[in-house]
Amino acid sequence: MMTCVRVKVQTAAETSARTNMADQKKILCVGLVCLDIISVVEEYPEEDTDTRCVSQRWQRGGNASNSCTVLSLLGAPCAFMGSLAAGPVADFIMADFLQRAIDVSAVAWQVKGQTPSACCVVCPSSGSRTVLLYDTDLPDVTAEDFSRIDLAQFKWIHWEGRNAGEQVKMIQQVEKFNAQLPDRQRIGISVEIEKTREPLYELFPCGDVVFVSKDVARHFGFDSPEAALKGLYPRVKKGAVLICAWAEKGADALGPDGLLLHSDAFPPETLVDTLGAGDTFNAGVLHTLSNGGSVQEALTFGCRIAGRKCGFHGYDGIREK
Amino acid sequence: MMTCVRVKVQTAAETSARTNMADQKKILCVGLVCLDIISVVEEYPEEDTDTRCVSQRWQRGGNASNSCTVLSLLGAPCAFMGSLAAGPVADFIMADFLQRAIDVSAVAWQVKGQTPSACCVVCPSSGSRTVLLYDTDLPDVTAEDFSRIDLAQFKWIHWEGRNAGEQVKMIQQVEKFNAQLPDRQRIGISVEIEKTREPLYELFPCGDVVFVSKDVARHFGFDSPEAALKGLYPRVKKGAVLICAWAEKGADALGPDGLLLHSDAFPPETLVDTLGAGDTFNAGVLHTLSNGGSVQEALTFGCRIAGRKCGFHGYDGIREK
Repeated sequence: MMTCVRVKVQTAAETSARTNMADQKKILCVGLVCLDIISVVEEYPEEDTDTRCVSQRWQRGGNASNSCTVLSLLGAPCAFMGSLAAGPVADFIMADFLQRAIDVSAVAWQVKGQTPSACCVVCPSSGSRTVLLYDTDLPDVTAEDFSRIDLAQFKWIHWEGRNAGEQVKMIQQVEKFNAQLPDRQRIGISVEIEKTREPLYELFPCGDVVFVSKDVARHFGFDSPEAALKGLYPRVKKGAVLICAWAEKGADALGPDGLLLHSDAFPPETLVDTLGAGDTFNAGVLHTLSNGGSVQEALTFGCRIAGRKCGFHGYDGIREK
Repeated sequence: MMTCVRVKVQTAAETSARTNMADQKKILCVGLVCLDIISVVEEYPEEDTDTRCVSQRWQRGGNASNSCTVLSLLGAPCAFMGSLAAGPVADFIMADFLQRAIDVSAVAWQVKGQTPSACCVVCPSSGSRTVLLYDTDLPDVTAEDFSRIDLAQFKWIHWEGRNAGEQVKMIQQVEKFNAQLPDRQRIGISVEIEKTREPLYELFPCGDVVFVSKDVARHFGFDSPEAALKGLYPRVKKGAVLICAWAEKGADALGPDGLLLHSDAFPPETLVDTLGAGDTFNAGVLHTLSNGGSVQEALTFGCRIAGRKCGFHGYDGIREK
């Protein structure tokens, strides 16, 4: 009897393991990781003054790296790909990645340059986050680096727009890989165009899902998410979804059916820390879409966790709630 | 013959060493050491924006610690006393102290708290330096820590005003030590009152030399160095010299003879980095006075090297010129 029961239990576990094998395909985020040195202040400091902060902390930062943090807290297996240079800052970053169980096997270790750092001033009273980033002397991940990874382990790959020329080549590699597979096994492709840098705009036609920032929308002369989506949609590829988050106005999306989708923002009772709210929104959207959710569900979930995140410092509160 | 020559050489060296023994008495600076994370920007960032820096670097900072750097570059033997907490930031700081040949045997290692950090935004186009310091969770050096050091090795001790209550007790220890000595062997005592914090004002009657900042002067309602010196002089002890530096206006001093001394500023051709200019001025004054120079010589030399320092990043240029 006992033996029989055991066999049954094992079989159940094995079945579950097999099911999980498919579920456990990872989301890969390609982009920046840096050290965020975060100073929390009562008021944004005037130029040429000395201010004592309320608190100060080190945090792993960078858009793609932050989205991995949130995905991991949401229970989604994920991996990060970006550049690092060995040293104490990279040690801090790697320890944090590992503590979050984020796969770092695709990190590109560079022999020249230094790991980027950002000084971030967080001001809860105004809800602002001001970022001073230095990231210009470390080479970015190349298409050649990317070609060395095994794509079969991923169900979704997200690019934070940086070195767009190389990133376009990486995306072509994924499209080639996808072409051999049935639709439902294909890797989802998303890109984020956050900075107003001309070369990044060549990423518009590259993703199944394209995130465009309020900054970029404004740079193109649009003063609402609706206007931005209608105006920029002709730039994306056929069938793609274009998404634009607009801080306290929530987020909108436009797909091939021409229907404009919207979610309101979900501001917390008290605004505490808006740093990384956009990366949290992106992670919420990727998590929903990569699990087969609808675009409307993804928008609403993205807004909900991004809003919640603004109610506490850092990201750990995402798991607690 | 060879032996004889050798003996002669050794004797000369020994004589020189004995002379140096007196000369080599150190200047001790007591106060803050922290990590300065310095971001150089084209314009001071507006609140809630993302800016890419021109450059970013780590530098050992803190007023007393910076003054030690300058003293060391001027060739003056010096020592630092302040608190540190073990970790990668303290490792960086200690390596820099040692590289500058600054004596760190009086550092007070704390078991709780973290080594302070400051985010500093340096803007050459406007000449500003904006400092965001977090230094509130590391205990300061106490009078008991101070009582453990051998005062006989110092010719001058300078305090950056912080935990004034304890610092007053440290100064009393030095006064007691001085009381047993002939005048010319006594340790010079200086204090810096830079921050507008009420408890620091009890340091006014404590130094042979008292540095008071433009900020403190203004806080007392004075809008020129002359007015500040006349108005604040009644607070210092009998015979003391009160010094007030006022950025581009240079610096003034008032001693017991009632004569107001002044030095103009010596601005560099191009303003590059004003961070630590005040600490450079203080070091120049201490260096001159502790070598027997006059107050006027000290003022002029302080203004000269502080101005020169503003013409390059960091401090190394002080040695080169």
